[in-house]
Amino acid sequence: MRRVIMNDPIVFYRREDGGVAAMEDRCPHRNYPLSRGELVGNSIQCGYHGLTFGPDGQCVYAPGQDRAPSAAKLRSYPVVERGGIIWIYPGDPADAASQPVPDLEWMTDPAWTPWIDGSIYLRCNHQLLTENLLDISHLAYVHKTSMGSDPDRIAASETTVTPFDTGVRRRVRIADIPTPSLFAASALVQDRIDQWTESWMIPGLYQNHTRVRPASSLSWEESGEAPLQNRSFHGIVPETESTTHYFHGGARLNVDVETITGEKAHEILEEDVDVLEAIQENQQFVDGRPIVNLRNDGTVMQWRAVLRNLRAPKAA
Amino acid sequence: MRRVIMNDPIVFYRREDGGVAAMEDRCPHRNYPLSRGELVGNSIQCGYHGLTFGPDGQCVYAPGQDRAPSAAKLRSYPVVERGGIIWIYPGDPADAASQPVPDLEWMTDPAWTPWIDGSIYLRCNHQLLTENLLDISHLAYVHKTSMGSDPDRIAASETTVTPFDTGVRRRVRIADIPTPSLFAASALVQDRIDQWTESWMIPGLYQNHTRVRPASSLSWEESGEAPLQNRSFHGIVPETESTTHYFHGGARLNVDVETITGEKAHEILEEDVDVLEAIQENQQFVDGRPIVNLRNDGTVMQWRAVLRNLRAPKAA
Amino acid sequence: MRRVIMNDPIVFYRREDGGVAAMEDRCPHRNYPLSRGELVGNSIQCGYHGLTFGPDGQCVYAPGQDRAPSAAKLRSYPVVERGGIIWIYPGDPADAASQPVPDLEWMTDPAWTPWIDGSIYLRCNHQLLTENLLDISHLAYVHKTSMGSDPDRIAASETTVTPFDTGVRRRVRIADIPTPSLFAASALVQDRIDQWTESWMIPGLYQNHTRVRPASSLSWEESGEAPLQNRSFHGIVPETESTTHYFHGGARLNVDVETITGEKAHEILEEDVDVLEAIQENQQFVDGRPIVNLRNDGTVMQWRAVLRNLRAPKAA
Repeated sequence: MRRVIMNDPIVFYRREDGGVAAMEDRCPHRNYPLSRGELVGNSIQCGYHGLTFGPDGQCVYAPGQDRAPSAAKLRSYPVVERGGIIWIYPGDPADAASQPVPDLEWMTDPAWTPWIDGSIYLRCNHQLLTENLLDISHLAYVHKTSMGSDPDRIAASETTVTPFDTGVRRRVRIADIPTPSLFAASALVQDRIDQWTESWMIPGLYQNHTRVRPASSLSWEESGEAPLQNRSFHGIVPETESTTHYFHGGARLNVDVETITGEKAHEILEEDVDVLEAIQENQQFVDGRPIVNLRNDGTVMQWRAVLRNLRAPKAA
Repeated sequence: MRRVIMNDPIVFYRREDGGVAAMEDRCPHRNYPLSRGELVGNSIQCGYHGLTFGPDGQCVYAPGQDRAPSAAKLRSYPVVERGGIIWIYPGDPADAASQPVPDLEWMTDPAWTPWIDGSIYLRCNHQLLTENLLDISHLAYVHKTSMGSDPDRIAASETTVTPFDTGVRRRVRIADIPTPSLFAASALVQDRIDQWTESWMIPGLYQNHTRVRPASSLSWEESGEAPLQNRSFHGIVPETESTTHYFHGGARLNVDVETITGEKAHEILEEDVDVLEAIQENQQFVDGRPIVNLRNDGTVMQWRAVLRNLRAPKAA
Repeated sequence: MRRVIMNDPIVFYRREDGGVAAMEDRCPHRNYPLSRGELVGNSIQCGYHGLTFGPDGQCVYAPGQDRAPSAAKLRSYPVVERGGIIWIYPGDPADAASQPVPDLEWMTDPAWTPWIDGSIYLRCNHQLLTENLLDISHLAYVHKTSMGSDPDRIAASETTVTPFDTGVRRRVRIADIPTPSLFAASALVQDRIDQWTESWMIPGLYQNHTRVRPASSLSWEESGEAPLQNRSFHGIVPETESTTHYFHGGARLNVDVETITGEKAHEILEEDVDVLEAIQENQQFVDGRPIVNLRNDGTVMQWRAVLRNLRAPKAA
């Protein structure tokens, strides 16, 4: 299959041993996408003139020639498949092995019930999505009828942000709010809840773990396991400057309500899509005008600092 | 509601006293259009994070913060509502009060029967529309089956153009032409008519007053009231370099035929739309090639001179 | 009718004597396309204000003016109509008469049965199409189910390329291949065939003549007339950098199968369209990356050399 990632067309296919190969999605002869060709054993054959490439991107066959041209060599990408997600490393392949790859082990924990949303094609820049995910206070407005509750209490929630080398971790405790409709049917909570959310954002992946319990004055550490819990992952794959692939799934624990499903999650995400695409469209007219950040934007500001640091030239 | 005017997105809403507020259509926090939010009393609340703005563009509420951030201040526009049209002043607000605002008092004159066409979204530059409206001779071709008649007599009509500070006034007398089909069913005229049209064009608004009577040799001044009369306004609101909002309505007097209606007017305007959009599309290929003006383009030439003068730097 | 050729809109119409006039497709007054106007005898009248132009591009009538403005003069193009194809000469008109114009006399040879495909609007640059036509080896892949056969034998076919001033001639002998499905139902060949194709490419026109016979060891010269023969022409008319009009037709000789028809040819061409448009789309991402040419690209390389030579400045 073809996926354009950061303006780079890449073809993915499975080798005979089940592993994943990833390389430039173009035949170097006339730039026809290899993804429109056919698999031949461990190789992929171009549908235009039949040039055939191994999983390392090297041409192994050219019709009518005794030897495949050695110059016909495509860039291939180191691939890791973990927790149902396929990762490629677009940097120097020599560095690939030492890169940390997130392990969504909880997605396969038998105690949890997984749900899959799938993917959304988003007509906006990936940063709009990333910063939307790092932001708590929009729950009260964009998701008013599902996850929303008292806007002032949500916006004034207790937040701890811990930056690390490649991202940020955040803990948010939203205390004593009227139960959002998403949890309202549950027998495990009453009219008011505490909602604790722990999140991790690294470039391309956001995960969170939300714990919901009846409102109380217990601290994060004092409390035992919460009766309602949900985890989710959000894969953010930039396609171009103005389009993004958005992948989404999760798992729930001990939830006695049927509302936390892939279908419901998709509805909620579509509310974000409406907002983000409207911002992207508005930017063509208002980009560059003065922006005001709010007290709640601390997580976003720390995230931007981590990105600046990741992009800075490194000392030898 | 949102309206992009000259690449500037503007949100319009009604205050509780019925007056109109107009300001930048973006929340200064993340550029989400305020027009997608909700009215809260005299204010408008952003649908993304709840920031709320008064009609002067000042932020009056930010969820979770004791004080709204004073830096969150949007540009607002002076507004006048007159004759069913809402005007904003995009220049220095201090000059707004001294600007003349056209009064379409005839639209509410009980002796006249108003008709409304509505608006058309035009995929062309606003100047193509403006100059189309200032031009009489296209009636014989573009509107051949409605307002058209003898092309030579229309093109050779008696025309007086009077420029003023901000526009032009024009009187046209088309003498002794076969009655256009638009008026043919009327008992008030016969086979041939005189058609006298007085027009006013200022930037953004064209008005005209057409008088139709049986062909005779009376001058403009000698003649009394004509039996068939129609007035119309044409609002020209540039959206971008290549798109224009076009508003249209009018009123008729003593017309015994049912053909001058909003619906019929819309059909006639669609004939212009076809022409103007085809020119816009052709310009991508032929813009810059030599242009020939005709004897009939005097009004357009005087209008262009008025615009050049309006745009020229003013002495202190 | 309107046709944009190399970003140049041109209107074509028939004079009263049946000859073809071709000129700029814009009225020089307001750039409205003349092709949306009406024919008036030998002239064409603009649908906006009625300016009327003779076949030489000179304005002959302007409504309401005694004399048509002499400055209203459009560029017209020398035209030749031959073999059902209309040719214009976009260079210096003084050179037009000495230009060779291809004569598709075989299209009207009564011994042959003509078939017409028609035209395809192609969303790609014309060079992608030209080089596709000069290339034999894609038959085995893109046209696998119609003209395709053993890819190695096709790619290793005997090819002679003869460049001339304005193009290339090529002879290809594909020897002893399993009969392609397009000819399989014929009683005139058996399981294996020889396929000989002679082609001529000049800028804008590709012609070929294919001869199919039972596989044998006879040379091109030794063999008499082949039992199955087909000729076709391919008109390549660049519209813009990224769009091309593609015209197609042909004639068959002694073919006892009903498979060589305009309809079938159209199906086969649509296979090329899929490939060429996918390449065009991929180019936005991969243009400029290293390209590898194959042994089979000799014809394309000689064609590119002819083009470079045609474009080079000429000595006086």
